[in-house]
Amino acid sequence: MQREKKLNFLADRVKKSGGDPIILEISVGKEVGWADISISDVLSKVGKTTEEVFSLDRGKAADIVIEGAKRLVLELYEKNEIDGIVAYGGSMGASIATSVMRALPVGFPKLMLTTMAAGDISPYVGTKDICMMYPIAEAGLNKVTRRILNNAAACVVGMANSPDLDDIAEKPLIGCMMFGVTTPCVLRASKYFESRGYDVIINHAVGSGGRSMEELIGDGLISGVLDITTHEIGDYLLGGVLSAGPDRLTAAGDIGIPQVIAPGGLDLINFGPKDTVPEEHLSKTHLPGKGLYIHNPTVTCVGVSPDEASLIAEHIAEKINRAKGPTAFCIPMRGWGACDLSEPNKDLGWAGPDPGPVWVSDPEKPERSLRSRKFARTLLDKVDLEKSNVDILIVDKHLNEPEFADLMSELLEEMLTGRWKKGSHHDLSYIVHLEEL
Amino acid sequence: MQREKKLNFLADRVKKSGGDPIILEISVGKEVGWADISISDVLSKVGKTTEEVFSLDRGKAADIVIEGAKRLVLELYEKNEIDGIVAYGGSMGASIATSVMRALPVGFPKLMLTTMAAGDISPYVGTKDICMMYPIAEAGLNKVTRRILNNAAACVVGMANSPDLDDIAEKPLIGCMMFGVTTPCVLRASKYFESRGYDVIINHAVGSGGRSMEELIGDGLISGVLDITTHEIGDYLLGGVLSAGPDRLTAAGDIGIPQVIAPGGLDLINFGPKDTVPEEHLSKTHLPGKGLYIHNPTVTCVGVSPDEASLIAEHIAEKINRAKGPTAFCIPMRGWGACDLSEPNKDLGWAGPDPGPVWVSDPEKPERSLRSRKFARTLLDKVDLEKSNVDILIVDKHLNEPEFADLMSELLEEMLTGRWKKGSHHDLSYIVHLEEL
Repeated sequence: MQREKKLNFLADRVKKSGGDPIILEISVGKEVGWADISISDVLSKVGKTTEEVFSLDRGKAADIVIEGAKRLVLELYEKNEIDGIVAYGGSMGASIATSVMRALPVGFPKLMLTTMAAGDISPYVGTKDICMMYPIAEAGLNKVTRRILNNAAACVVGMANSPDLDDIAEKPLIGCMMFGVTTPCVLRASKYFESRGYDVIINHAVGSGGRSMEELIGDGLISGVLDITTHEIGDYLLGGVLSAGPDRLTAAGDIGIPQVIAPGGLDLINFGPKDTVPEEHLSKTHLPGKGLYIHNPTVTCVGVSPDEASLIAEHIAEKINRAKGPTAFCIPMRGWGACDLSEPNKDLGWAGPDPGPVWVSDPEKPERSLRSRKFARTLLDKVDLEKSNVDILIVDKHLNEPEFADLMSELLEEMLTGRWKKGSHHDLSYIVHLEEL
Repeated sequence: MQREKKLNFLADRVKKSGGDPIILEISVGKEVGWADISISDVLSKVGKTTEEVFSLDRGKAADIVIEGAKRLVLELYEKNEIDGIVAYGGSMGASIATSVMRALPVGFPKLMLTTMAAGDISPYVGTKDICMMYPIAEAGLNKVTRRILNNAAACVVGMANSPDLDDIAEKPLIGCMMFGVTTPCVLRASKYFESRGYDVIINHAVGSGGRSMEELIGDGLISGVLDITTHEIGDYLLGGVLSAGPDRLTAAGDIGIPQVIAPGGLDLINFGPKDTVPEEHLSKTHLPGKGLYIHNPTVTCVGVSPDEASLIAEHIAEKINRAKGPTAFCIPMRGWGACDLSEPNKDLGWAGPDPGPVWVSDPEKPERSLRSRKFARTLLDKVDLEKSNVDILIVDKHLNEPEFADLMSELLEEMLTGRWKKGSHHDLSYIVHLEEL
């Protein structure tokens, strides 16, 4: 009753603001009977009935409602039948509604009104442009809540009517992943593109950054990817805290945009304070390449062993084999970040006095990394090199050396301008050939 | 340069959405030179110059910028020269801008764009209706940020143009403070008002709730206050965790609206898990009225001693003496909440088998609370009873007894309808007179 009054008031104010409201029901306990799109309609999208779903515990019911509502809302979006989404609810309502909102592309107007919006909103916002608004009062329609609901309606209708941006000459956008240990490479590569008429968006490879990049690519906002920093994959596979989930390094391949990739930061697994590092890693820090690196009291890293690197290569190979667009993977043989250096070098990020804490020399060629060799061998072995859109370049440089950033940049620019062919840049003096590995 | 481009773009999109942007500068390090209202103008509101302020550390500089910007923006608001506020910044910018926004009344459009809006936003939102929007990208103008800034501009202009609510017959709004231990009283009193054509807004007395209530009153949204639950004042004075700051119980008095007050919950000081209770309290739980009450693993309470209650009464008396409107304080002599009962009574909130954990009998009249007597004596002593707008009623009931809720409700209704006079309801059989204390 309370809910009906509040939501009908919100819908009415949407109408008064010039919008055309459709009330979509996301109940998990009881069908309300007054929604434009009922919970039965929502559940039918996933072949379920209210009887089946309402008998489950609320958490499980919510998961099914989310799945059905996502499909229904995405259909409406694709048919151009909706121009914005606004929801009002408590923690359960906010959880369901924002899950649906997060499935919609960046720029599509999204507004969540909830008393949850005065605390930690990360579970609701994720990495999307969801407006979160605190309605102050928890229950009932009154002088306070009416003003706020009136504003909310005007806000979402305003966004839905936002003047279009067609008059602005957009530069193509390059997506780039960064972390402290790969900064020199990223900054040089992004300058390369900015000086050539591109915009560059740089995300931090801390989990949310990688997820957001995959979403931006999926939304069609990115023209090409400089995936310099990929340790979120290592953290996903080896239990680190900066995982971006299983879908990292898939969106560019799925939609077929150019990507140039490097194993930046993949020499490290990232954890919180030292006492949170799992024993299985802490007990191995004496082994080659598994060194401990305490960055600060809240960030502790452990090296990736050559065998672990090989595992990661196997995982990456599967993803590369599925890529539909031009894809080059560049492997620097002299280290993958600031902690992975055979000797101190301030320009490359490690002041010393010792070698980088996770450096592991290749006994056959001590200036090269054993981790790199194992990784490269597995990648070359598992990637389908018959594919004309996929190339692997083994580079006798450190990731943070200027030549490496330039190599990645030039490859991506060739791809973006349609000039790239498999084998490009293999003639450089510092490219290592298969037989030398 | 980046900042200039981004903010000018935002201002331009406000214009394209039909708004008239004014750029207000809140820099803490360097004057930008292109703002409509410069940081010098802002600082002049508090008699400071950029030279003085920019030489301070950033935290101190920010405090001064906030103070100046608040005054300037409130002046613009009072002169009807602004209809909404939107800001874009990092953690420092968000901190300054939202401090200014929080000074504006509920319903005034407020939008903060910041990458901080994907985590804990409580420091920014406080208890106000600030829209928080996550801009995804951290730096630069590009295809992603332009879309989001375009939406932000349309959002704030939309809210500023929201259709007015004059067509809606607003009921007068009663503000009411609740906590678990006072629920029976609050629910009965709010039903009383709802059945008589009022709306009731119930806030939880957990600190933010009390602050929000004071703000709503200050914004002129509340017609009368049923301040049944006031332990936020005890927590403020005695070190509990549910403090609402020094200004609790002041707004109604300042603007002169009717208020009827009770010491609901003031028998308890509230803490987190048991191991967070300060030793000074934990060491006294054997003393009369100081009993320990473990509500759940995260909420632990300690009783308020009769002497502590007297201290609280002194503090409250000062606030009541400053009140400009009709003010009645009702003191129940048989307990102030569910934990403050001489014997188990399920209707009043305590199942037993023992007396309530913080109950302390008056040796002279064991059915009454010694805490109540000490509190009442101090209040009667310190409140200026010459004032015709202030009354104190000593009631031989428990706070959760229906007669007590009805007494408070009837007094407030008389005040709201202009029928109240000091001395009203003193003729009830359960009113205790001064000489009996």
